[in-house]
Amino acid sequence: MKTISKIDELKVVLREKKYNKEQIGFVPTMGFLHEGHASLVRRAVKENDITVVSIFVNPTQFDSKEDLETYPSDLKKDIELLRALGVNYVFTPDKKEMYSKMFSTFVDIEGDITKKLCGASREGHFKGVATVVTKLFNIVLPDKAYFGQKDAQQVAVISRMVKDLNMDVEIIPCPIVREKDGLALSSRNVLLKESERIDALILSKSLFEAKELIESGEKDSKIIKKYIVDKINTLEYANIDYVDVVNASTLEDISLIEGEVLIALAVYIGKPRLIDNIRISVI
Amino acid sequence: MKTISKIDELKVVLREKKYNKEQIGFVPTMGFLHEGHASLVRRAVKENDITVVSIFVNPTQFDSKEDLETYPSDLKKDIELLRALGVNYVFTPDKKEMYSKMFSTFVDIEGDITKKLCGASREGHFKGVATVVTKLFNIVLPDKAYFGQKDAQQVAVISRMVKDLNMDVEIIPCPIVREKDGLALSSRNVLLKESERIDALILSKSLFEAKELIESGEKDSKIIKKYIVDKINTLEYANIDYVDVVNASTLEDISLIEGEVLIALAVYIGKPRLIDNIRISVI
Repeated sequence: MKTISKIDELKVVLREKKYNKEQIGFVPTMGFLHEGHASLVRRAVKENDITVVSIFVNPTQFDSKEDLETYPSDLKKDIELLRALGVNYVFTPDKKEMYSKMFSTFVDIEGDITKKLCGASREGHFKGVATVVTKLFNIVLPDKAYFGQKDAQQVAVISRMVKDLNMDVEIIPCPIVREKDGLALSSRNVLLKESERIDALILSKSLFEAKELIESGEKDSKIIKKYIVDKINTLEYANIDYVDVVNASTLEDISLIEGEVLIALAVYIGKPRLIDNIRISVI
Repeated sequence: MKTISKIDELKVVLREKKYNKEQIGFVPTMGFLHEGHASLVRRAVKENDITVVSIFVNPTQFDSKEDLETYPSDLKKDIELLRALGVNYVFTPDKKEMYSKMFSTFVDIEGDITKKLCGASREGHFKGVATVVTKLFNIVLPDKAYFGQKDAQQVAVISRMVKDLNMDVEIIPCPIVREKDGLALSSRNVLLKESERIDALILSKSLFEAKELIESGEKDSKIIKKYIVDKINTLEYANIDYVDVVNASTLEDISLIEGEVLIALAVYIGKPRLIDNIRISVI
């Protein structure tokens, strides 16, 4: 495994592989890797000749300076993990090389798909995500790119972008990885205090129960939403950003629960903002 | 020469060439080709193994419906010309395939580079240009792409975008081609009435004279600008959109004329809006 930080160096290495018709799998990350990332990387290694993982805490997708500054990192541990998983190249670009002083180009996806859910409270977040992912795709030229379904909106936004801009990459969404007690893995979980860590379980629990309600025949999205909101509001230190029941690909609100449905939520548990979601197929 | 209108069909053909390490040259156009386009195509044919020319009147870059609807076209003549020039593939995509109903992704370059000159009066124009050029680059994957210096701002914007988004393409700006009497070639010139065609000569004349003034030692951009504006305003049917003296790469206003300088103008001569410019190197 090789760690490369210069953009042009990685381009040269990967273009040779590309021309040699080797399939390139890519997992973009912001580091501080957990088992969720590892599940993406394992799949990439299995399905491709070459696997590239990027570690880059992208400043343009943070809407709060504090969130950016407190974002956890442990590069040494990340690199050990990626080596053990059989990754070929770790890309650790420099902020200054990714965003020069003259930098002024952004990729933006308009409409509900970026304005709802996390987009409503995180102004400019998906513009930052789409821009950095476009840059990374242009540098890596992956055949397949792997994204965790935990960031369900990110998967929907990136899939839309790839179609709209005719990019040569297949987006592979991968299932959420959870702790045994249900908590969705997140690099932000380390920011939770012990009591908050227990409180946070209500997020996954309420989603699982909502799924059961739907499977028992509930078709009214308002009732489902109210059920989750009420449950979370029993906690003193929980502050709901959103709880939404939407069409899984367009992210548009639905009133009747049918087809591919996404229930997504974002909740502050103390300081950290946690997200979780569940996808349900209703025939 | 082969004409292809389906995106995926062109991708398959060109990926094979790309993997075969054939150099791909690309000339994006909106059709109704003239000698200016021909000069780009000749250079592309000379410098590459494969030359692709696209003909697509891109709706997202028109700020006026009337301008879009009156934009001239002659596909049959264009195709004959391109065949004679030795082009390999003509790409004539369908509007509905380029922009599906769900289309919502745009590439935008922020700052003076898109807000000044043509960007000031043509809201959204460069966003439309950057978006379609990104799409075309992703479809064609050219090694080199050729753009006319007549659209000097377009060259600056696309060059900025390619750098910012780490695209694998070299942008080749090519000199303005003019009629013998100095009028810069443009597909819009056919929209000029006979008397307007004569009036329009004042644009290139004033630019050439401004260049002479600078070469004789004039360093004050205000004096140069006033000279051009006064000259154009002697015409009854001319309506100035802008006359600007700017840094040739950032397009920022300059007061002292030095380095790489661009004098650019856009003027309505009757209904048609014509643009022209001249680049001057002042040591």
